[in-house]
Amino acid sequence: MARKTGSHSEITGPKIRAEAQRLFARHGFAAVSMRQIAGAVGVQAGALYLYTPDKEALLFDLLKTHMDELIAAWHAEPGGGDAHARLERFVRFHIRFNLERAEAVFLSYMELRNLSPENFAVIEGLRKTYETELEAILKAGQDEGVFLIPDTKLATMAIIAMLTGVNTWFREGGRLSRATVADIYWDMVRKSVGA
Amino acid sequence: MARKTGSHSEITGPKIRAEAQRLFARHGFAAVSMRQIAGAVGVQAGALYLYTPDKEALLFDLLKTHMDELIAAWHAEPGGGDAHARLERFVRFHIRFNLERAEAVFLSYMELRNLSPENFAVIEGLRKTYETELEAILKAGQDEGVFLIPDTKLATMAIIAMLTGVNTWFREGGRLSRATVADIYWDMVRKSVGA
Repeated sequence: MARKTGSHSEITGPKIRAEAQRLFARHGFAAVSMRQIAGAVGVQAGALYLYTPDKEALLFDLLKTHMDELIAAWHAEPGGGDAHARLERFVRFHIRFNLERAEAVFLSYMELRNLSPENFAVIEGLRKTYETELEAILKAGQDEGVFLIPDTKLATMAIIAMLTGVNTWFREGGRLSRATVADIYWDMVRKSVGA
Repeated sequence: MARKTGSHSEITGPKIRAEAQRLFARHGFAAVSMRQIAGAVGVQAGALYLYTPDKEALLFDLLKTHMDELIAAWHAEPGGGDAHARLERFVRFHIRFNLERAEAVFLSYMELRNLSPENFAVIEGLRKTYETELEAILKAGQDEGVFLIPDTKLATMAIIAMLTGVNTWFREGGRLSRATVADIYWDMVRKSVGA
């Protein structure tokens, strides 16, 4: 059977998500109405409800997609190597991916409180999955005797916070390129785990 | 002249600020009305406007007070010692102060976008002042030859992000005490600057 092209969700889905993300990031979830999102997309508010049951479902969709894509992108990175090489890859990957998705990252931190408890648990679970990827590298390095880490769980949280923090101050065309920033953060992370 | 006690601003000011902070942190600045804040305080909405010209001024007051108190508390810490000792003090101070003011810290990161450009610039300036305190320690350690830091500016941002990140995961009564968490973070920070 021929694939149906131009169906409603295929055409407007990405646009709705892009406009919702932009508006939520700029004004905050609570301050944005479904009517505003519809206006930005160029459809009637009623048409939005063909795509999503409500505004919270739209926010959850954005946050979940972001986490799914983050985890998939990390899995698509070349694997192998020792813990030292894998940690370097993680550091460079995390900075690069997050800088490319600055709006989604911002939303992911800002609007967690607006999710229902069930949806919050899903996002928390995905975060845990991602954190476990880093913690596995730290534990491997600990076992290989190349890292010296008092607590791999805390080191995981510390490293992720440090790396995600780049999003709060990095400006394109500023003093340092993304590559130089990644070099410097890798130097700090490497030392912080005693490698 | 005897100090006037029980004036309007002395009684309701702290209560208004406490309730506004609690409501903004829980629901988001945009979702909270002046009427709601007045209700939580137990006054008429009109009475709120005797204290603050509008909701944004109230938010600015909360964010500015938080930064002023952070900087004053840091200046009240015992001084002296070499860069190594001062960095350790900074790490332990930052974690302790931020955990004690979790709601204010959360607001400070979440609601910056709701400040007017003028008020935003004031908060940015205060953040810069605080960051400069840490950067001065890192530079001193670099000069003393005890730290090895490729870029003191980036190290400043990395360390602050790492330390503030404790607020996102720390739970009282969890696996680790505040003191143990501070010990572990100090270990990582120390190593990250090559000391």
